[in-house]
Amino acid sequence: MYTATEVEKYSFRNDYSEGAHPFIIQSLFTRCTEVNLPYGADKHSDTAADMIRGLCKDPKAEVAFIAGGTPTNVLAINAFLRNSYEAVITAVSGHVNVHETGAVEYTGHKVIDVPSGLTGKLTPELIASAVEYHNSEHMLIPKLVYVSQSTELGTIYSKAELTAISEYCRSHDLYLFLDGARLGSALMAKENDLTLPDIAALTDAFYIGGTKNGLLFGEALVFTGSGLNATDHLRWLIKQHGFMLAKGYVVGMQFEEAFRDGLFFKMAKHENECAEKIVETLRRCGFELYTKWQTNQIFVILPTKLAEEAAAKYGCFIESRLTKDRCAVRIVTSWATTDEAVDSICGWFLAQFCAGIIKDYIKK
Amino acid sequence: MYTATEVEKYSFRNDYSEGAHPFIIQSLFTRCTEVNLPYGADKHSDTAADMIRGLCKDPKAEVAFIAGGTPTNVLAINAFLRNSYEAVITAVSGHVNVHETGAVEYTGHKVIDVPSGLTGKLTPELIASAVEYHNSEHMLIPKLVYVSQSTELGTIYSKAELTAISEYCRSHDLYLFLDGARLGSALMAKENDLTLPDIAALTDAFYIGGTKNGLLFGEALVFTGSGLNATDHLRWLIKQHGFMLAKGYVVGMQFEEAFRDGLFFKMAKHENECAEKIVETLRRCGFELYTKWQTNQIFVILPTKLAEEAAAKYGCFIESRLTKDRCAVRIVTSWATTDEAVDSICGWFLAQFCAGIIKDYIKK
Amino acid sequence: MYTATEVEKYSFRNDYSEGAHPFIIQSLFTRCTEVNLPYGADKHSDTAADMIRGLCKDPKAEVAFIAGGTPTNVLAINAFLRNSYEAVITAVSGHVNVHETGAVEYTGHKVIDVPSGLTGKLTPELIASAVEYHNSEHMLIPKLVYVSQSTELGTIYSKAELTAISEYCRSHDLYLFLDGARLGSALMAKENDLTLPDIAALTDAFYIGGTKNGLLFGEALVFTGSGLNATDHLRWLIKQHGFMLAKGYVVGMQFEEAFRDGLFFKMAKHENECAEKIVETLRRCGFELYTKWQTNQIFVILPTKLAEEAAAKYGCFIESRLTKDRCAVRIVTSWATTDEAVDSICGWFLAQFCAGIIKDYIKK
Amino acid sequence: MYTATEVEKYSFRNDYSEGAHPFIIQSLFTRCTEVNLPYGADKHSDTAADMIRGLCKDPKAEVAFIAGGTPTNVLAINAFLRNSYEAVITAVSGHVNVHETGAVEYTGHKVIDVPSGLTGKLTPELIASAVEYHNSEHMLIPKLVYVSQSTELGTIYSKAELTAISEYCRSHDLYLFLDGARLGSALMAKENDLTLPDIAALTDAFYIGGTKNGLLFGEALVFTGSGLNATDHLRWLIKQHGFMLAKGYVVGMQFEEAFRDGLFFKMAKHENECAEKIVETLRRCGFELYTKWQTNQIFVILPTKLAEEAAAKYGCFIESRLTKDRCAVRIVTSWATTDEAVDSICGWFLAQFCAGIIKDYIKK
Repeated sequence: MYTATEVEKYSFRNDYSEGAHPFIIQSLFTRCTEVNLPYGADKHSDTAADMIRGLCKDPKAEVAFIAGGTPTNVLAINAFLRNSYEAVITAVSGHVNVHETGAVEYTGHKVIDVPSGLTGKLTPELIASAVEYHNSEHMLIPKLVYVSQSTELGTIYSKAELTAISEYCRSHDLYLFLDGARLGSALMAKENDLTLPDIAALTDAFYIGGTKNGLLFGEALVFTGSGLNATDHLRWLIKQHGFMLAKGYVVGMQFEEAFRDGLFFKMAKHENECAEKIVETLRRCGFELYTKWQTNQIFVILPTKLAEEAAAKYGCFIESRLTKDRCAVRIVTSWATTDEAVDSICGWFLAQFCAGIIKDYIKK
Repeated sequence: MYTATEVEKYSFRNDYSEGAHPFIIQSLFTRCTEVNLPYGADKHSDTAADMIRGLCKDPKAEVAFIAGGTPTNVLAINAFLRNSYEAVITAVSGHVNVHETGAVEYTGHKVIDVPSGLTGKLTPELIASAVEYHNSEHMLIPKLVYVSQSTELGTIYSKAELTAISEYCRSHDLYLFLDGARLGSALMAKENDLTLPDIAALTDAFYIGGTKNGLLFGEALVFTGSGLNATDHLRWLIKQHGFMLAKGYVVGMQFEEAFRDGLFFKMAKHENECAEKIVETLRRCGFELYTKWQTNQIFVILPTKLAEEAAAKYGCFIESRLTKDRCAVRIVTSWATTDEAVDSICGWFLAQFCAGIIKDYIKK
Repeated sequence: MYTATEVEKYSFRNDYSEGAHPFIIQSLFTRCTEVNLPYGADKHSDTAADMIRGLCKDPKAEVAFIAGGTPTNVLAINAFLRNSYEAVITAVSGHVNVHETGAVEYTGHKVIDVPSGLTGKLTPELIASAVEYHNSEHMLIPKLVYVSQSTELGTIYSKAELTAISEYCRSHDLYLFLDGARLGSALMAKENDLTLPDIAALTDAFYIGGTKNGLLFGEALVFTGSGLNATDHLRWLIKQHGFMLAKGYVVGMQFEEAFRDGLFFKMAKHENECAEKIVETLRRCGFELYTKWQTNQIFVILPTKLAEEAAAKYGCFIESRLTKDRCAVRIVTSWATTDEAVDSICGWFLAQFCAGIIKDYIKK
Repeated sequence: MYTATEVEKYSFRNDYSEGAHPFIIQSLFTRCTEVNLPYGADKHSDTAADMIRGLCKDPKAEVAFIAGGTPTNVLAINAFLRNSYEAVITAVSGHVNVHETGAVEYTGHKVIDVPSGLTGKLTPELIASAVEYHNSEHMLIPKLVYVSQSTELGTIYSKAELTAISEYCRSHDLYLFLDGARLGSALMAKENDLTLPDIAALTDAFYIGGTKNGLLFGEALVFTGSGLNATDHLRWLIKQHGFMLAKGYVVGMQFEEAFRDGLFFKMAKHENECAEKIVETLRRCGFELYTKWQTNQIFVILPTKLAEEAAAKYGCFIESRLTKDRCAVRIVTSWATTDEAVDSICGWFLAQFCAGIIKDYIKK
């Protein structure tokens, strides 16, 4: 657990350290006594769902608003895996594999992890290796493929890559679910060529993450036209898992505001721009990136001493201690990252660089 | 599902139809860019927990903030029932019995329901009947007793009643958990003689419901001094169930505000006062109450025609169709119920009364 | 737990106290080194399944051999309840309700119990009361009806009764499963008018109990023509639950022998005949039966002193202590019950009767 | 599924293709009408348990008889992992990892698999890598280590190896469970230096496999002195999982017979001796072993054509297609393997060798 005494002045810990964009909270404030139907059956949730269907160009899509990323993953996986003997395939680095305290296994389903290296991405070949291995009643039946966009390592699937996975899945009786906890940042990435309509067309379900993109909380889980057979009793599933909010309209209102005037995308773009400035500085200083930089998560290799200082000063997360001397460090920008904060961390890196600490490291 | 087209102008549907008290939302607004540690490890959650420990006079109590009632119940029950062969005892009318879509059974534990009539309350004798029946390895082991305050039928346990249950539980190796979804209203009830310190002393865990008492969402689950052995890995349990909010501080901030200046209790008192006015009118009109009135839920017996009009006009819930001609109807007041709304429903009842519709019914 | 020190000389404790009919064991002995395919894919299991399809006149039926009653119930219920939000309806006295240590709830499904009194039988009306109550996403969806033949109280459904239930189920999208732990005795009951083909035609699945009818262990679970959609991955389900025997042929061989020459039915008939003799004696002595006698389980009301002696001397089970003075006692006959044993218990009852102990009781 | 049409004349498919040793079945036959207490509370189970406690020199050990390997693993794992957030560590090749259709995950617990190569064995270092990785509430808590003796690849742990694992577990708050499906063969292996008392002293639980060593079915699960806190309500767990046999004495009788006069060990020794003869022939023919040979499972690398013939003729299992030309093939001997069968397969290998097919292969 974190010790809650002191929080860094400029934080690059993660993209969920700050409450929510003022417009988002304001939209709740102005409706504080408005009467709405409970359990997500309200007009704001309806409107937000309509907006999402429009953005995805998938008029039949079903949208459910859920309070967080883990419950959304658990719900989607259970919506697709109706039979207890069905399993989900993920990259080893997939969030559902290790970092959700066994939440998926708790619901009875094995998470089949496939080694995917530092791309964090699955390929049809990797998926096939798992599918082909499970070939009798003494093993489970892989039925769902889980990918993240952006991945847990900050990378993104290209349209060609996701299309190849989608085609494999559709020809092998597998559903495809895309975890979009950071979909905003992925969509606004410079190298991105995947649109929301593309994602809706290629997957059976995905979610648009609000928690990590400027909302107080909330994810929009979208079952696309091809995934609708998973939604026959979706509300029963949501309630049974404890994920149905009495005041569902509180999430609906936030997404309504986020998509009303493009705020959602503006916030994501801002995250990426802040990240880009930091990556430029890191490169100028000669630091090697640990994974390919594409979105609001930067993974960089730093000397251990520097890594620990970055953790203490800016809340950066030490992802992996590669050797005694070198660490992979994660730097995350958010909708609320200020120019001042970016200047501070960039200045600090440059100062370290000039001081020659880094020079020595690079010499080695 | 509710049809979301039209919502009643004056609503007595439930106590979670309106967003949140303006002060609550304002407290989020003013901190919208403040950096906080994630996952509930923040200073606001700490402060709110300290406030609650103070209110309960239980300095060792452990407090966890959870997003809603069903997840809080599921969490508490699983925190106490560590072994798969242990079960929870509830009144038939207990919320966990039928109205949570099998959320408890989904986690593997049977809910043993005991008939409790229109009081909605358990007694030591009722609990004993279930405990004594389960006497071999061919049956489960009851290990936890679940009560609600106020109950699902609007009634409250007296101090003597809860003490008797607590004593039975402690002498029979049973934990006692109190569902406080509407604890605010119960505490502020005129007939109430149970204080927060009493409840903390008599139970092993209970929760203080925010969702139904003026917060956007959130419940404060309190493991009291006697229930601490259920909390050894509480954060693992919370995460595994999908109940850990990334921005846990959003709930912490709300409870901090609710308890800072007594707002929580003021809102509850207001609910009860509105309910009292309606009950007075119902009595004046000669309507029989279905269950004893004590809190912000009123259960009244109405002629079917009137019941259906009340449902259509004020969102009242038809609890039970007693006969072809008579229904039990639920009227709920909330923190946001206005004088205008109370006047409207009271006026409407009086008008019905005068018009003789009711007179005829009473004659029969 | 039973104390294992002394076992009664003549036992009426239950119908699984003696190993197996000598012919059954002999059939295993003569094939002790025969090579067979594992996991139930052997020719003996095939032959036994064919025999059962023939007896049931259901050539499409799928048959699985399982080691015991509880696993068979768990398997069947999970085969039908593929979705976590589906529930099974049973009579309160149904074996799955309380007496399987929450085995069904452990797999995540609620057991909805309906009060059925001393008949132990469901009716369309009782089922309807449960079905109609569960009417929104805040409650589970009843999807399967569980009945036992004979029931846990020794009674049997008539053809008319089971037909009415079957018709209700089919018109309300409910599956019907019949627990046949004691189906042999039910089929051979004098009052029985239900044949195996009837049962196969009226239910979606049922099982033919071997453990309680002269086999070492083993139940034949039959998915009838109308229940085949529950069997799409039955072997996966069996394996996952830990119910797949490596040497499945050991059960197949036993059922092959049991049905080869009618041994199964002869053993059941013998049980009932022994029971009938005891019932005649009980009636002659003036003892009131607790439930209607029809099969190899007799429930009789005895003075407490006599009940306790019967328990000590003959292993009879005290089902219920009705008052301080009177108990309901269960007497069970088995395939191995000897004439000598029947004479002993009958003689003992008559002796008690003559001694006037009983007379006094009847006078009261 | 296997096709059940034809079974090989001489079978080396596995060690559970033949019923049971004649003495075992005879012991059931002679007691076919003996009255015994149900559910494992009988004197034969008691005697067999006493014998096992004696063999293990662990007078406090608790013994439970279970019908098969998967249920025994599931039971043991659930007995140790009482909390839902606890996980079990296994070698990738461990039977519980993939080959039990997710039976462990079905009970809610993740199986953490550690790469272990062709030894099939864990080491303290491998275990430590998993333990150290799981370091916060966002991940599970490894609480149990699962090893197999012999392993799924036919190898055995030495006393030094198991001692090292045991010491690691005890110093890191981990339980150690040993799957002994083939413990007989391991104990009688020429290279073995681990006795039953050693295993009882080093582990918290293990099982002695009967199904794969000459019994009709049945495994003796032993909770050793150090594992007794997992047994507080063992009978509840057994029943709830559907693993409690009504006629538990049928397993007790078999183990009683197996250990009465050393039959269990004689059968295991026979398996190993048959395997040794085959290994000698394979070596003489120049075939490379795939894994180190030590017990009744032989893994040998064969040209694909030969592998497929061995599969067709002797039921040998093709473990892995290493390349287009070479396969790893499993040959298993059993208690019932005859000299004739051994001569047949050895002769066949020699014939292939002489015919030069093999020579060509070796040349390459």
